[in-house]
Amino acid sequence: MYEGPVQELIDELGRLPGVGPKSAQRIGFHLLTVDPADIDRLVTALRRVKDEVKFCTVCGNVAEGELCKVCGDQRRDAGLICVVEESKDVAAIERTREFRGRYHVLGGAISPIDGIGPDQLRIAELLKRIAEPGVSEVILATDPNLEGEATATYLVRLLRTFPDLTVTRLASGLPVGGDLEYADEVTLGRAFSGRRAVDA
Amino acid sequence: MYEGPVQELIDELGRLPGVGPKSAQRIGFHLLTVDPADIDRLVTALRRVKDEVKFCTVCGNVAEGELCKVCGDQRRDAGLICVVEESKDVAAIERTREFRGRYHVLGGAISPIDGIGPDQLRIAELLKRIAEPGVSEVILATDPNLEGEATATYLVRLLRTFPDLTVTRLASGLPVGGDLEYADEVTLGRAFSGRRAVDA
Repeated sequence: MYEGPVQELIDELGRLPGVGPKSAQRIGFHLLTVDPADIDRLVTALRRVKDEVKFCTVCGNVAEGELCKVCGDQRRDAGLICVVEESKDVAAIERTREFRGRYHVLGGAISPIDGIGPDQLRIAELLKRIAEPGVSEVILATDPNLEGEATATYLVRLLRTFPDLTVTRLASGLPVGGDLEYADEVTLGRAFSGRRAVDA
Repeated sequence: MYEGPVQELIDELGRLPGVGPKSAQRIGFHLLTVDPADIDRLVTALRRVKDEVKFCTVCGNVAEGELCKVCGDQRRDAGLICVVEESKDVAAIERTREFRGRYHVLGGAISPIDGIGPDQLRIAELLKRIAEPGVSEVILATDPNLEGEATATYLVRLLRTFPDLTVTRLASGLPVGGDLEYADEVTLGRAFSGRRAVDA
């Protein structure tokens, strides 16, 4: 439809997640009119991510060197491992500033439809870390959806074999700031079954 | 929040139109996990747009050489000039296959809030084209919004000075496939005032 290079860029942009044909076209034409230095900055950022970003050899989180920021920080409690699906989940939990332990990034969740079984995830690496002395608790923080729950259930079964290891799952319940009226039944049911005594 | 290069990429992506912080994060993490060849293709597409795309010296449309595809096509009627705001409007009209004339891309619309007056648009170039013999009709196809209407009104006043030139504006009315019930009052009003006799 468009002159060669413009269409090519629109096609490439359209491959990005959440970018439909209309957005790709809008971004493509926007880039035609910006300062060339803006495109250079984007190109540099893309190249740096491709060339410089590695994955932490311990936990699988994104890292600039051998270790990610969390694993490289000696003040973080190595006895507490929070298991998540992706690096972006690490970032989400770090934003809460509630957690002072370490992470383990699985690289996804069990999803037979997408051909992802336990062998495609970094589960063997997790078991190796837990087998070392000093790990007291594993917090399962996979997504609260079908795949995440399946993965958590699978991991619970494996982790049961470790004596003295506490395995916990993030609480399900009403999102803070939400309306009870608009909560779905499953969430509301979980909020009931997970209710807690209030300090008087 | 993230390791340097990842955050840098997310920041750059967040500057694109229609890409909010969440989408930027999603795209950024997606690019961490794709085949490096995919990033190379995107980088190449960006570089080519920056280096190879020029603007047609006649109409201002995007072009790979001196002239855009339309101006380079001798079969297109040079007596008919359709005035649009942006190159993407050319593409939208070309998709209809209804128009066999040439275009003139203004490079935007009059918008005092954004500091865009007539001098920032390619209006002088338009007048120069019309002053040459052979142009019989100018179709004003600016957007049907405040800025586009203001631009069209401004152009009508200028073009009145050309004798023997027909100036037309795209029809306003109900969008095909839409519901009359859901049309806004302005659109419905335009559809009434622009009603046409039906061939019996």
